[in-house]
Amino acid sequence: MFQRLVIVGPGLIGASFGLAIKKLGLAREIIGVARSLETQNGALQIGACDFVTSDLIEAATNADFVFLAPPVGQMKSVCERIAPVLTKNGIVTDAGSTKAQIVRDCEAIFGKNAHFIGGHPMAGSEKVGPLAARADLFESATWILTPTPQTDADALQVLQKMTESFGARPLILDAQTHDELLAVTSHLPHITAAALTQVFGIARGQNEVVAQLIAGGWRDGTRVAAGSAEMWRDICLSNRDAILDALDDLSLELNHFRAALGENNDGSLLDWLQSAATERRRF
Amino acid sequence: MFQRLVIVGPGLIGASFGLAIKKLGLAREIIGVARSLETQNGALQIGACDFVTSDLIEAATNADFVFLAPPVGQMKSVCERIAPVLTKNGIVTDAGSTKAQIVRDCEAIFGKNAHFIGGHPMAGSEKVGPLAARADLFESATWILTPTPQTDADALQVLQKMTESFGARPLILDAQTHDELLAVTSHLPHITAAALTQVFGIARGQNEVVAQLIAGGWRDGTRVAAGSAEMWRDICLSNRDAILDALDDLSLELNHFRAALGENNDGSLLDWLQSAATERRRF
Repeated sequence: MFQRLVIVGPGLIGASFGLAIKKLGLAREIIGVARSLETQNGALQIGACDFVTSDLIEAATNADFVFLAPPVGQMKSVCERIAPVLTKNGIVTDAGSTKAQIVRDCEAIFGKNAHFIGGHPMAGSEKVGPLAARADLFESATWILTPTPQTDADALQVLQKMTESFGARPLILDAQTHDELLAVTSHLPHITAAALTQVFGIARGQNEVVAQLIAGGWRDGTRVAAGSAEMWRDICLSNRDAILDALDDLSLELNHFRAALGENNDGSLLDWLQSAATERRRF
Repeated sequence: MFQRLVIVGPGLIGASFGLAIKKLGLAREIIGVARSLETQNGALQIGACDFVTSDLIEAATNADFVFLAPPVGQMKSVCERIAPVLTKNGIVTDAGSTKAQIVRDCEAIFGKNAHFIGGHPMAGSEKVGPLAARADLFESATWILTPTPQTDADALQVLQKMTESFGARPLILDAQTHDELLAVTSHLPHITAAALTQVFGIARGQNEVVAQLIAGGWRDGTRVAAGSAEMWRDICLSNRDAILDALDDLSLELNHFRAALGENNDGSLLDWLQSAATERRRF
């Protein structure tokens, strides 16, 4: 049981974490830190936090557990500010969608004063904000933890047990592998969704009737492009190299298809479409 | 009211057409043509057809209305076989996902003996086959009709009234425009879904754990890749030029993003992601 548990960014993920902690009685007090009054009030209203504040330092002082769910681009500066005031041997984890850069930055910031372990709960929804939070959001979700050779084994075990107690499935991965695989399963799909939407926007500029011809494939394939541009800019920048590699792989596939279509190679087209269909049907 | 209405390929779309016709009492008899016994029996069982057969010529002899819903790649040969036996001034339309090549081929085949008008009801579902058919499948759906300068005005009006009586919204487009716009709203999303799935398959070959990291964006963005490879091969081949153009537009967008990411240009990344998000949120 933690004495002072702080949630930085009690939005959908952060506030769901608070609800799950409260439901299990794992903290004496839960303090939410948010800049916006709307997020503060929402987190308080649904009972995800006992107190809310916009003062990060005040909240983090003597905290023994910190859950970081701010935008990925703010992770480092938040850690720099809270590192001096946490209680000795406090545990800090995050919910960022990318891991290598965050772990590299943040582990070094806390040094030996507190235990930082990167995390990524693979849960979410189209909705955002604390009012969409649910105590069972993490049930059956994969919760990635990215320890390093410097990670404190006890702190890691605490996080594993905590995520298991939420009904999540903790998965240990190194941060680099996490980022390479998420580039494929999350970041690349976002970029293609945005690119498909841009192509559609150009077509709509030429002929408005295209909006009457939207098919299910477009609707599904572009859905995530409506997400926060700021959030996705941060994710892309913090996972640049893996995303560039994934884009290269995508280009190879598209070029392969393009060449087969250009030469009316029906056998090659069928093979390519068939192997994609077979792979997709597994999931 | 038609005397002898033939549905070639009473699958999801064809059998739904039969149900809609029957509900409105627009034909004295409805004959379904299918190779597979399963499709024949299904169409009969749900009442989409009064008779079923695998004999295309027998069914089409003296028919005054033919609805063509076979695979796109078989459209031309079906038309060549039925053209000599239809009743004079019969109406033929189709439900193919591409139009320019089909209209070019089929209009010429029927010549002045029967009236061919290309069509594309924008309806469907994940399901296939006659058992998934519904009399109200076309309600509120856009039903594209692609007349040419040679099209008989009365026959076109019959199709417009028929599709309106189904609750669909008929939309007149020239076949070439149809194909260019559908390349953007349907064919390109399919190809990117397949390409994303291929990239995922390669990653899975290197590290099975990627399957535990599937996010909603991947699930949505690759859903259609599970569709019939044969059907999509035919669609791609019959709309080759428009798809190649759409692929070029997609490459430009991906390259623009890639360049911005490569040089850490956060302003350019944000602009691009923001304009995609704004466009997507319109729909």
